[in-house]
Amino acid sequence: MRALHWDGTAARVIDHADPRATDGVAVVHVSVAGICNTDLELVKGYMDFRGVLGHEFVGTVADGPAAWQGRRVVGEINFACGHCVWCARGLQRHCPTRRVMGILDADGAFAEYVAVPLANLHRIADAVDDEHAVFTEPLAAAFEILDQVALAPDADCVVLGDGKLGLLVAQVLSHAGARVLAVGKHTSHLDILRRRGIATVEVSAWQRTPADIVVEATGSSAGLTMAIAATKPRGTLVLKSTVAGAAQLNLAPLVINEITVVGSRCGRFAPALAALASGAIDVTSLIAARRPLSAGVDGLRCAAEPGALKVLLQP
Amino acid sequence: MRALHWDGTAARVIDHADPRATDGVAVVHVSVAGICNTDLELVKGYMDFRGVLGHEFVGTVADGPAAWQGRRVVGEINFACGHCVWCARGLQRHCPTRRVMGILDADGAFAEYVAVPLANLHRIADAVDDEHAVFTEPLAAAFEILDQVALAPDADCVVLGDGKLGLLVAQVLSHAGARVLAVGKHTSHLDILRRRGIATVEVSAWQRTPADIVVEATGSSAGLTMAIAATKPRGTLVLKSTVAGAAQLNLAPLVINEITVVGSRCGRFAPALAALASGAIDVTSLIAARRPLSAGVDGLRCAAEPGALKVLLQP
Repeated sequence: MRALHWDGTAARVIDHADPRATDGVAVVHVSVAGICNTDLELVKGYMDFRGVLGHEFVGTVADGPAAWQGRRVVGEINFACGHCVWCARGLQRHCPTRRVMGILDADGAFAEYVAVPLANLHRIADAVDDEHAVFTEPLAAAFEILDQVALAPDADCVVLGDGKLGLLVAQVLSHAGARVLAVGKHTSHLDILRRRGIATVEVSAWQRTPADIVVEATGSSAGLTMAIAATKPRGTLVLKSTVAGAAQLNLAPLVINEITVVGSRCGRFAPALAALASGAIDVTSLIAARRPLSAGVDGLRCAAEPGALKVLLQP
Repeated sequence: MRALHWDGTAARVIDHADPRATDGVAVVHVSVAGICNTDLELVKGYMDFRGVLGHEFVGTVADGPAAWQGRRVVGEINFACGHCVWCARGLQRHCPTRRVMGILDADGAFAEYVAVPLANLHRIADAVDDEHAVFTEPLAAAFEILDQVALAPDADCVVLGDGKLGLLVAQVLSHAGARVLAVGKHTSHLDILRRRGIATVEVSAWQRTPADIVVEATGSSAGLTMAIAATKPRGTLVLKSTVAGAAQLNLAPLVINEITVVGSRCGRFAPALAALASGAIDVTSLIAARRPLSAGVDGLRCAAEPGALKVLLQP
């Protein structure tokens, strides 16, 4: 099969051995996959990954148990052991021996086929088409914030960053009833939120009034310093960006203002699937470009352009 | 009066104008003051402070309302406005227009006399002598953790750092019923905790098994990286060290492991005063040296020696 592979030096579309179904593991024929900022960080060295990239996908089970055969599915990306204390708590996402699709010791979904444990698969409602369903994984990461942080009814939320994740986070928080101000750099991105009735401001015009809850989704290490300054004393800063390498940071304001920083990564798929089925979240407007898998390298280049939203790959 | 003054370049004992009692502000004759790591950071440039240093003190009210005259007192260090939303919530420590004794726009207690708002004063029980009472402020900072973080009965706690604050934090958490492992570099410091039945280990022998709650009290920016690695996924890292300047940090593990970082600064005095009165916390063993205020510069030097515990100044 064809696959977009990262060998530690270059990303290339290569001929790659087909994955095989094994006990408890299905093979999914990928229909659409999405390029995430994490993929762009991986090709800068993040996680020291080698293999087929990609962890946002939708597809059809091509090989697996009869009950799954031909089913349209999305898949959770953390491949867990299933029997440690973390798995017993329902936190397979933190299983210490996990592999992570397209990120850690497991080939990803920028390919014609991808192997996924059955435990990770979720069926998609017929009403949700592929180009919506492919947003399940990043949308689940946005919903994760609601599992981690209690939103007081009168809480002010600022979402920093109007990239792919920021636009999802702002919608999820607003949908959950929070008073959201989205701060970004791209008028056209902020317009997506404005159309949903969410307050927005360009960072150059932002008054920087501190908020109770600030979500850092700029994808840059500089964003964290801005986020710390934008969080009220005793407030909560949700850290979403994973950035390769170390950055120069002054954390004294965290201590002085007794800020709580909550690292936030992957989330449960259920709330994301429900929101996609109900149409509560606009994901269509986030699609910037589509590329065939054979042009996957161009897809990565396109996704890395400043201000690029979601680039989809079609195997 | 004599006072240990920092002019931005040098710390010197100088002749300084006596503070005056005003409406709502008493003058306290300082009996004993303690040198804190924050003082050592201030003379490296932290907070850009200029003035009389010192914020840990015990003394006797020399000038103030009759009800306070001659009372033995300690004083909270955040001088708040008393009428903003933070003050209304009982969080004077976060009043945005606060001055902070010996740290921000207010002269401190390394002096014969110090001016303190009456609202900040606490009487000391007769049973608590001056050399215990002078630990009220740092002990309150240790107790602050209990106001911020819920200690599950089965939670494992690691306290990183066996300096002055680490030794208080380990005792406070153990006293609150937590299972504490104190990690340090100084056998003699760890012995103080061992005598209280607290488990300890030297950092060179530490297995680094991750814990549910980790308190970073090393006073060094390198401590944070170690603390992040020592915190379980979904665990809590309490950040106590304030360090001048920026440090090189890789925060991706915070996101990947969804760690919550809680910045923690000053605390309420009440639990600290109660613990000192009951003898629950050993502070005597933390006293490393005493200096007359006239030798305050030598006191600072002494406190800055690697492994130094509390140096007390006696005006």
